[in-house]
Amino acid sequence: MSKTRVGIINVTGYAGSELARILYRHPEVGVEQVTGRSAAGKQLSEVYPHLLDADMTISPSLDSSVDFVFSALPHAASAEALSPFIEEDVRCVDISADFRLKDVNVFESWYKTEHPCPQHIENAVYGMPELHRDDVKRSRLIANPGCYPTGTILGLAPAFASDIIETDVISDSKSGISGAGRKGDVAYNFNEINDNMSAYGLSGHRHMPEMSQELSALSKHGEVKVTFVPHLAPMTRGILGTHYANLKSEVSQEGATDIYRTFYADEPFVRVVSSAPSTKETWGSNHVLINVNIDAYSGRLIVVTALDNLVKGAAGAGVQNMNLMLGLPETTGLETLAIYP
Amino acid sequence: MSKTRVGIINVTGYAGSELARILYRHPEVGVEQVTGRSAAGKQLSEVYPHLLDADMTISPSLDSSVDFVFSALPHAASAEALSPFIEEDVRCVDISADFRLKDVNVFESWYKTEHPCPQHIENAVYGMPELHRDDVKRSRLIANPGCYPTGTILGLAPAFASDIIETDVISDSKSGISGAGRKGDVAYNFNEINDNMSAYGLSGHRHMPEMSQELSALSKHGEVKVTFVPHLAPMTRGILGTHYANLKSEVSQEGATDIYRTFYADEPFVRVVSSAPSTKETWGSNHVLINVNIDAYSGRLIVVTALDNLVKGAAGAGVQNMNLMLGLPETTGLETLAIYP
Amino acid sequence: MSKTRVGIINVTGYAGSELARILYRHPEVGVEQVTGRSAAGKQLSEVYPHLLDADMTISPSLDSSVDFVFSALPHAASAEALSPFIEEDVRCVDISADFRLKDVNVFESWYKTEHPCPQHIENAVYGMPELHRDDVKRSRLIANPGCYPTGTILGLAPAFASDIIETDVISDSKSGISGAGRKGDVAYNFNEINDNMSAYGLSGHRHMPEMSQELSALSKHGEVKVTFVPHLAPMTRGILGTHYANLKSEVSQEGATDIYRTFYADEPFVRVVSSAPSTKETWGSNHVLINVNIDAYSGRLIVVTALDNLVKGAAGAGVQNMNLMLGLPETTGLETLAIYP
Amino acid sequence: MSKTRVGIINVTGYAGSELARILYRHPEVGVEQVTGRSAAGKQLSEVYPHLLDADMTISPSLDSSVDFVFSALPHAASAEALSPFIEEDVRCVDISADFRLKDVNVFESWYKTEHPCPQHIENAVYGMPELHRDDVKRSRLIANPGCYPTGTILGLAPAFASDIIETDVISDSKSGISGAGRKGDVAYNFNEINDNMSAYGLSGHRHMPEMSQELSALSKHGEVKVTFVPHLAPMTRGILGTHYANLKSEVSQEGATDIYRTFYADEPFVRVVSSAPSTKETWGSNHVLINVNIDAYSGRLIVVTALDNLVKGAAGAGVQNMNLMLGLPETTGLETLAIYP
Repeated sequence: MSKTRVGIINVTGYAGSELARILYRHPEVGVEQVTGRSAAGKQLSEVYPHLLDADMTISPSLDSSVDFVFSALPHAASAEALSPFIEEDVRCVDISADFRLKDVNVFESWYKTEHPCPQHIENAVYGMPELHRDDVKRSRLIANPGCYPTGTILGLAPAFASDIIETDVISDSKSGISGAGRKGDVAYNFNEINDNMSAYGLSGHRHMPEMSQELSALSKHGEVKVTFVPHLAPMTRGILGTHYANLKSEVSQEGATDIYRTFYADEPFVRVVSSAPSTKETWGSNHVLINVNIDAYSGRLIVVTALDNLVKGAAGAGVQNMNLMLGLPETTGLETLAIYP
Repeated sequence: MSKTRVGIINVTGYAGSELARILYRHPEVGVEQVTGRSAAGKQLSEVYPHLLDADMTISPSLDSSVDFVFSALPHAASAEALSPFIEEDVRCVDISADFRLKDVNVFESWYKTEHPCPQHIENAVYGMPELHRDDVKRSRLIANPGCYPTGTILGLAPAFASDIIETDVISDSKSGISGAGRKGDVAYNFNEINDNMSAYGLSGHRHMPEMSQELSALSKHGEVKVTFVPHLAPMTRGILGTHYANLKSEVSQEGATDIYRTFYADEPFVRVVSSAPSTKETWGSNHVLINVNIDAYSGRLIVVTALDNLVKGAAGAGVQNMNLMLGLPETTGLETLAIYP
Repeated sequence: MSKTRVGIINVTGYAGSELARILYRHPEVGVEQVTGRSAAGKQLSEVYPHLLDADMTISPSLDSSVDFVFSALPHAASAEALSPFIEEDVRCVDISADFRLKDVNVFESWYKTEHPCPQHIENAVYGMPELHRDDVKRSRLIANPGCYPTGTILGLAPAFASDIIETDVISDSKSGISGAGRKGDVAYNFNEINDNMSAYGLSGHRHMPEMSQELSALSKHGEVKVTFVPHLAPMTRGILGTHYANLKSEVSQEGATDIYRTFYADEPFVRVVSSAPSTKETWGSNHVLINVNIDAYSGRLIVVTALDNLVKGAAGAGVQNMNLMLGLPETTGLETLAIYP
Repeated sequence: MSKTRVGIINVTGYAGSELARILYRHPEVGVEQVTGRSAAGKQLSEVYPHLLDADMTISPSLDSSVDFVFSALPHAASAEALSPFIEEDVRCVDISADFRLKDVNVFESWYKTEHPCPQHIENAVYGMPELHRDDVKRSRLIANPGCYPTGTILGLAPAFASDIIETDVISDSKSGISGAGRKGDVAYNFNEINDNMSAYGLSGHRHMPEMSQELSALSKHGEVKVTFVPHLAPMTRGILGTHYANLKSEVSQEGATDIYRTFYADEPFVRVVSSAPSTKETWGSNHVLINVNIDAYSGRLIVVTALDNLVKGAAGAGVQNMNLMLGLPETTGLETLAIYP
C-alpha cells in the first residue's frame, strides 16, 4: 500500500517544522510538499538545518496531488488556505484557531477578524481525541486544540465529568517561548526573556473561550467560567498549568486520583502521575502529565499539568488526529520518549 | 561619627553574600566580621570571587565587638546563634523564619523542630516596613520576611485593608532557583532545572502561615486562608506572584488601582505599575512592582507582583530594616537601579 | 529471531538513562536489566519520570542472562564491573575511559588510579566507527570515545589524514553541563552555572591524551600535540568545538571542504556543512556537524564541530557501536532527527 | 559646584540604557537629555521599566545645553550625530566603532561604509585607560573600545609589552547575547539562542582590526595578527575570552603571572586572578578578570579574560573615560560589586 501523501502549509514556523520532524519518521505517510510564506524556493534545511535529512524545496503553495493537509498558518490565513482543500474533501488538520470555536461570533470577537469561511465550522471537529475520539475518526476537518487549552481542558475534564467542582475555575499557566512562534520581535529577544518571568493577557487571552467551550460541554451545570492567566517562562518548550477549582463537597485525595485514573485509563498519551510533574519530562514527546491534589484546608482541587507545547500542544496532537482519521494506530510515529535532561 | 560595626552570620549562603555585597557600599556601616560554617578560615573571595574587593577572613563565630548582627543561617540554627546577641541587647536582623510566626506552636508544627528560644518571639517585629514601620524603628530584633510572603503580603495588603476581597485567596508564585539556597543537591543541578518548570509544596509550604498571619491581621473578617502553590522557574533570581481573590462587590479597575496607589503612596520601594511587570525589572534592586487587575467576568482581583528574592526578598529588606533601626534614611545603600537586561 | 538481551550498568547517570531512552525504541534489542548504585530496588521511573513507559526495577547488578552489556559507570568502577562479562566473552561497550588509552601508564598517570584489569586493554577497540569500523565489527569490547574527543578527533582527522596541517593543534571546546554528569555538587548548582561561562582544566584535562592518541595515529609526522581547553557553557546538552591548526602550505577553502566531504562521504552520522553549525541542531540526534574554514590571513585551518554530548558523545555512539558488533544496520534506532528549537 | 550636564544619544539600546543606569547614581554628573530614534516623545520608563526612578522624556535630539555627550548609536550614524558636538568642542565619548581605527581606509573596508567625518579621527583617543590614560585625560573625543577587543587587548597587552610571545595570536571569545544589541531579529529570538552555542564571523569580524591596531602598537616586532573567532553563548551578559599565543622562549607560570600583576598593579578595574574566572563574577561591574596560564607542553601562553560586555565592554568604560576627561576620580560611580549569583 502506498503512503499517504501529506502536505504541510507553513512549514517554516515552529509547529510546521515540528510536523516535518515527526512525520519524517512516520512509517505510513510521506511529506510530499511543504510551503512557507517568505521562504518559497529555499530548501527546508536552509531555514532549519536540523531537518537536513528531510530536505525538500519549499513551495509557494500545495497542489492537488496531496491526500492530507496540515496547516500551521496563523488564524484567518489558515482557514483561507485550507478552504479549497476542504471543498475538495481532502482531509485537513488545522493547527490554527480558525475552526475551534463553534460560535463564529465568539471567534470574530476574540480574534478581531472576519472568519474567511464560517460555513465550514460546523463540519470541523475539535481534535482532542481524549474527548472526541469517535468524531475525530469520522472527521474530514480537524481543529487542532490550542497549546494552553490542551493542558487546561485535559486537566479539568475528569473533574467536570464527575461533577465534583464548581463551574468557576482558575488556570494559571506558564509557557515556554516557542509558543509565541518564530518571531523577530524585540519582546522575544533572548535578552528580554532570559532569566525573566512575566504574566500577560491579563485583560483576556484568546485561548479562554476555547477552554470554556469544551469544559462547559462536560459540565453538568452550564457555562464554565475560566479565569486564565498565561505567563512566559524562560524556557523554550513546555507548558506547566496549575488549575484551581472549588470542590462542591468533600473529596479525598485518593478519590480524586481515582476519578482521573479511571477517566484516562485507556488513553495512550495521558499519564496521571503521583507527584508534581515538570515540563522537561515531556520534552519532545506527545505525553500529558497530570497530577491531582486535594487541598482540604481550602476545599480546593489543584491540578498540575505538563506537556510539550509544540508536540501534544500542536504538531504531535495533529499527527495523533491524522492517525485516527486515516484508521492507523493512534500512536504511530509518536512512540518516542521525552528527551531528558 | 564612627560607622556601626556589623557582623554577618553565615555569609556563605546567597542571602549572606548578598548582605556583604550591599553593605560594602553602605556609607554608615562597616562589615567587621563574617562567619560561615564550613568555610571558617578561608577568605570570603575564595568562596565568592565577586566579593574580592570586600575581602576578609571568614571567622568561626562573631565576637562581642559587633554592634549589629545579621543572621542568614537556616531556621533553628539561626535563633540559636542569635540568642546570645539578643540577650546582650545587640540589635539583630534574622533572615531566617525563626521569629516570624507569633505562635510558637504554629512554628514548631510547620518547621518540625523545637524552637531554640521561644521566649524571644514576643520581642521580635515582623520586618515589613510597609506594614510595621514604627515597630521596626523601635525594635531590637527583626524577623525578616520570607521571600514568597513579601510578594504575597504586599500584593494583597491594600485589598484586605480596604476590605474589597473575600478572605480565601490564592497565591500562585514562581521563584528563581537562588531561593532554594546554595545547595549541592541533584534536584538543583543545572541540568535538572534548566528549560524546566515545576510546581512543588502542594501538600503545604512553610511560607503559608506567615502569609496568613500578616494578612489576617489586616483583614476585617478574621482569618485569611491562603492557597499557596510555589513553583520553580528556570532563572536565578526573581519571584513573580500571581494572586487571585474574589471581590466582595464590584470594583472598577481605576478604583482598585487607586486603592493600591494610595496605600503605597509614600513607600520608597513599592511601585504600583500600570502594566504587568517582569521579574528582571527588579534584578539586584530592592523594589517590589505591583500590578492590579480587575477581572469583571469572574469578579476577581488579580494582582501580579515582582521582586528580587535575594534583595527585597532577603538581604535588601534586611538592610532596609537595619536603616530604620539605626535611624538612618530608609533607602541608604539601596538606591541602585535594577540591572537590565 | 529473538531480540538481543541488553543490560545497562549504572542506568541512573545521564549516559545510562540516555541508553535506556534510545534502546526503548530499538527494534532488535531489548533492555532486560539495569543497575544503579544507590537506586537499586527503585523503579527506573522514580529516578527518571520521562522513562515511565520503559519502566523496570533497578537491580543491584546484572546477572548472566544478558547477551550484551553497556557500562556507564565512572572510570575504574566501570572496568571492574565489566571484567567478569569480558571474561565470559559477553560483548561489552564501556562508556567510561577505562579502555580508551592503549598505554596503561598514560591511563594511570592521567586518571590517578590503578587500572583494575589492564590485561583487557589490548583487546579493546576505540569505538569510533568513522576511523575503526572494521575493528569495531569484530570486537567484543568497545571503548566508547569521550564526548570532547569525539568532536576534536572527527574535526581534525581528515586534515591529518591528508597531511595538510602541522602537528601542533588547539581545541577550544564548549560543553553543556550534562557532560559533568548528574551530580549533587554546588559547582553545578543552577545558580552557579546559569548565565555564566568559564574555562576549566587549564592545567590539563583527561580527554587530551585520547585526542592525541587517535590523531597521532593518523598523522604522517608523529605525535600530535593538542592544546585542549574545555569550557562550561550554560546549556544542558551540546559540545561546540573550535579547532585551530597551522596549514603546512596554502589550501583553498574549496580544497579543504572537498577533503572533508570525501573523507566522510559514506558516513551515516557525519555532516560536513557549509555554514557554522550550532549545537542545538544536533539536540537528541547522533549527528556530528563539521564546518571547515581556511583563514588565509593567518594561514590557519579553523574547524567548528557540533554534537550532542549525550548522544554522539556517549549513548548514541554506544548504540552505533553495538549495531556494528551485532551485524545490524549501523543506524538502527538512531534515525530520529534533532529536536529544534 | 554644579553637576556636569550629560546627554545620551540613543538611550534605547542596551549600551545607552546601561549608561543611564550607571549615571543615575553618579554624584558629579546629571543626565539632562536622552534621545532614541523611534522612541522620541516616550518616557524612558516605557521602554525600560527598570529605569522608572530615572525617568525622563526621550527627545528627538540633544540641544546645545549639554556639557558632555555619549553616543550609543550604531557606527556611521554615531559619528554623524556627534560631529556637531565635536565641532563645538563639547567633550564626547563615542561607544560606536567610528573613531577607533586610526586608518580610515581600514575602517571603510571593514565597516563597508564611508566615514561621515574622517577629519575627526586623528583627534580621537582610543579610550582604554589602562593603555592610554594620559591621552584620555587630555582628550575631547574618546573612541570607546569594542566589547571583544577590551578582553583581548587587556588579556594580551602585558605579554606583548614584555615581549614574551610571538606576533601571531588566537582569540576564541564567547559572548552573551546583549552584545548583539536590542534587536528584533529571528536570529536572536529566545528559542534560537537558548540552550545553544555557535561560532560566527569565521570569514572575519570587525573587531579584529581594532585588536590588531592596539596590540601592534605594543609589539616590539611589528604587526600582530589576530585570529579572532567570536561565539554566541546562551547568556545575557559577559564575554569570556580564551587567548592562545606561542611563547618566544620558556617562561614560568610564576614569571608570567608576575608580568601581568606588575603591568596592572595600579589599575582600579583589572584583577589578575589565580584561577580561571567566570563571566558572572563581573555581572554589572566594571571589572576585568585575567587569568594567566603557561602550557609548558605546547610552549603556549593561555590567557582567560572575563568581563561584562555592557559595563567594562561599553557603558562602564565610557563612564571611566568620562571621569578621566572631567578630572574626577576614575572609579566614581563605578564602585559597585558584581551581582552574584
